[in-house]
Amino acid sequence: MRIEIISTGDEVLSGKITNTNFSYMSQKLEDVGLSVHWETTVGDDRDTLLAAFKLAGSRADAVIVNGGLGPTVDDLSQEIAAQAAGVELALNQEWLTIMEGFFTKRARVMPPNNVKQAMLPSTAEMIDNPIGTACGFAVDIGKARFFFTPGVPREMKRMLEEQVIPRILARSGAPASIYLKRFHSYGIGESHADEMLKGVEDLDPAGGVKLGFRAHYPQLETKLTVRGTDMDDVHRKLAPIAAEVRKRLGNFIMAEDDRSLEGVVLAELTAQQGTLSVVETFTSGAIAGRFGHLHSAEQVFRRGVVVRQFTDLHAVYGLKDVHLAGAMTEEAAAAVARAAREQTGASHSLVSLIDLDEGADRIDFGGTIWTGIATADDVVVRRSRILGGREWVRLGAVEMALDCLRRKLQGLPVNERIDFERT
Amino acid sequence: MRIEIISTGDEVLSGKITNTNFSYMSQKLEDVGLSVHWETTVGDDRDTLLAAFKLAGSRADAVIVNGGLGPTVDDLSQEIAAQAAGVELALNQEWLTIMEGFFTKRARVMPPNNVKQAMLPSTAEMIDNPIGTACGFAVDIGKARFFFTPGVPREMKRMLEEQVIPRILARSGAPASIYLKRFHSYGIGESHADEMLKGVEDLDPAGGVKLGFRAHYPQLETKLTVRGTDMDDVHRKLAPIAAEVRKRLGNFIMAEDDRSLEGVVLAELTAQQGTLSVVETFTSGAIAGRFGHLHSAEQVFRRGVVVRQFTDLHAVYGLKDVHLAGAMTEEAAAAVARAAREQTGASHSLVSLIDLDEGADRIDFGGTIWTGIATADDVVVRRSRILGGREWVRLGAVEMALDCLRRKLQGLPVNERIDFERT
Repeated sequence: MRIEIISTGDEVLSGKITNTNFSYMSQKLEDVGLSVHWETTVGDDRDTLLAAFKLAGSRADAVIVNGGLGPTVDDLSQEIAAQAAGVELALNQEWLTIMEGFFTKRARVMPPNNVKQAMLPSTAEMIDNPIGTACGFAVDIGKARFFFTPGVPREMKRMLEEQVIPRILARSGAPASIYLKRFHSYGIGESHADEMLKGVEDLDPAGGVKLGFRAHYPQLETKLTVRGTDMDDVHRKLAPIAAEVRKRLGNFIMAEDDRSLEGVVLAELTAQQGTLSVVETFTSGAIAGRFGHLHSAEQVFRRGVVVRQFTDLHAVYGLKDVHLAGAMTEEAAAAVARAAREQTGASHSLVSLIDLDEGADRIDFGGTIWTGIATADDVVVRRSRILGGREWVRLGAVEMALDCLRRKLQGLPVNERIDFERT
Repeated sequence: MRIEIISTGDEVLSGKITNTNFSYMSQKLEDVGLSVHWETTVGDDRDTLLAAFKLAGSRADAVIVNGGLGPTVDDLSQEIAAQAAGVELALNQEWLTIMEGFFTKRARVMPPNNVKQAMLPSTAEMIDNPIGTACGFAVDIGKARFFFTPGVPREMKRMLEEQVIPRILARSGAPASIYLKRFHSYGIGESHADEMLKGVEDLDPAGGVKLGFRAHYPQLETKLTVRGTDMDDVHRKLAPIAAEVRKRLGNFIMAEDDRSLEGVVLAELTAQQGTLSVVETFTSGAIAGRFGHLHSAEQVFRRGVVVRQFTDLHAVYGLKDVHLAGAMTEEAAAAVARAAREQTGASHSLVSLIDLDEGADRIDFGGTIWTGIATADDVVVRRSRILGGREWVRLGAVEMALDCLRRKLQGLPVNERIDFERT
């Protein structure tokens, strides 16, 4: 099954828009065991579009075209699709009715140029778009089946998942059911995780499970793609392998599937009826910013404080007997964590106090990160040194803080060594 | 001049990496008046690479290939370039010597497989990479000149700007000098700015200046691409048009060229020997996070406070006589701004207090944003209503706060209406 993706539009071709639609589509196809063979980006130009469609029709089995389904004159996908397929454009009455309903529901009159969106190649199969006026469609060009999708990301995503992928899978003769299981971890590099998970795929001797990774510092996503005859078969194959992955990656797994680290932290605090007070320095609000704006965080998030000089903490917390000038110490970090909790009456405090290296930014620029958590019962402080430039240290410190809090809330050790640390 | 870009690598093709190298390259070419005609992404596969090189060599005048110059077995660009050009690979002694020096300088021994990086097609022109071991090169394939660049972004960027673009410009017969002037604004939409700047290009009757935009909410970038016989000619053409753009966009211009809004705010505060105290609610640290981590911000940034419920401000600032339960008011916002400044002794305070709409996130979800700034002399409060969903409101509020502070520091009106506001 050779798959090609054609991205269209002057804004993508000129680089005004980064082509995140393509990477999204390709990853979604990978997740169900399909691979993209070629990707082509062309502008809103009749000759180039026609050449691209004909070329793809000669070398691919399935082609997904993205963009060019809008109502304006530079939206050319239907017209060129008809030309490449050697058929006429015809009004699709079904889509016209759907579109008119779309506008009626919003108490608006449909502008006349929207009719263009219901003009499809006469041989096309209509593909539903439940959330927009751009009609998807499928048509044969050359030896390939072409699937036309809208450029608006949320419309493309829904159409890809609900309509296009099932059709491509049906054509590819792949097993009927495919499932993607994801684990999100912090603190393990990709090659280390690969080593830790050596052989897990073999727990399904039939080879129905494929292991993969996607690293986006500081997080790592571990993916299991499972194929089976039906969903029962998929879950039967997945269960022992997922259990083995959980066992081997252990405390490093922060969240699974669509959950996020910040979402887990918020859910744990909410479940424990906890509240939180945060203190930051160099991260300058980025720790609070990860979950303070989430829905229902207003019940949990008590206060965030940012200072850029440790000595400014005296003005916030007093702490007369605590030495805050010069380098941070474990004692001082613990005192700040205790004070932040006590001042706000929160059940938990989370502090991230960072001693940055001197001098200009550079690849071996580093920081010593003191992460502290206080509760009514105790205080833990963790010291970590991270190198890699100012931005690397900043991102690492944010994830470190949130993950330490997750571990504390889940009763796991806060001081487990991670791959990104230097001594 | 038909230009094609070929992006190589399994990680890009599979969507594991978003292809920001391509959008960067395409924009840089646009900035000097060149346009990309096709973009193709292929994986690390000999047959596909060869087909892509031959196809591009048959339809383009200049081709930029990105990636595949590394030392590992899946880096195939030199090998397939030689094959497509019909020549042998040959050791480039000059690059081998440079590479050995690269390792010696870092007190390391060059691993044997790095020798591969000095193997170039025998007819290739070497292109210098001053910051890495991947050697760039140019070679003819078909009727096109191919330029091979490394996948590492900072190496690609430097090579593109210093080596590749000048060579393509020389071949295209374009005027010797091209310059890109950029203006960054907040508060004007792209079509409005286009209207405001109608006719500015015509101030150079020879047509040497091209106007363009790049919108990335909430900011808009206005670009002038100027061509001339030499840099004196360019600057002579640019001067009256840049002055006209400044006049028409007026107070909305926050920064020019490589400067950023947060950089301008920090520079103004530093120049005025000012200090800053920030109070946030729904933005949850994102305002402080835009500049608190910048170099030298530690001299200016005095304190940031985040709360998610207005009533929690009583615990921070007292304000017994100020009513903070229920909806925010101008009086209460002013009182918080005054208190935040007085408590820290900062010269300026910046507060962003947001009344969010009720209910779930949706496309017409909105927020009423109260932005306040206090100085020793006065307090200003600005009320704005922004719709477009939780994330849109959050991003809009951050930019609103920073831009109001910029205006205050520059003596400009803080209450000028923007395009994104609803009443």
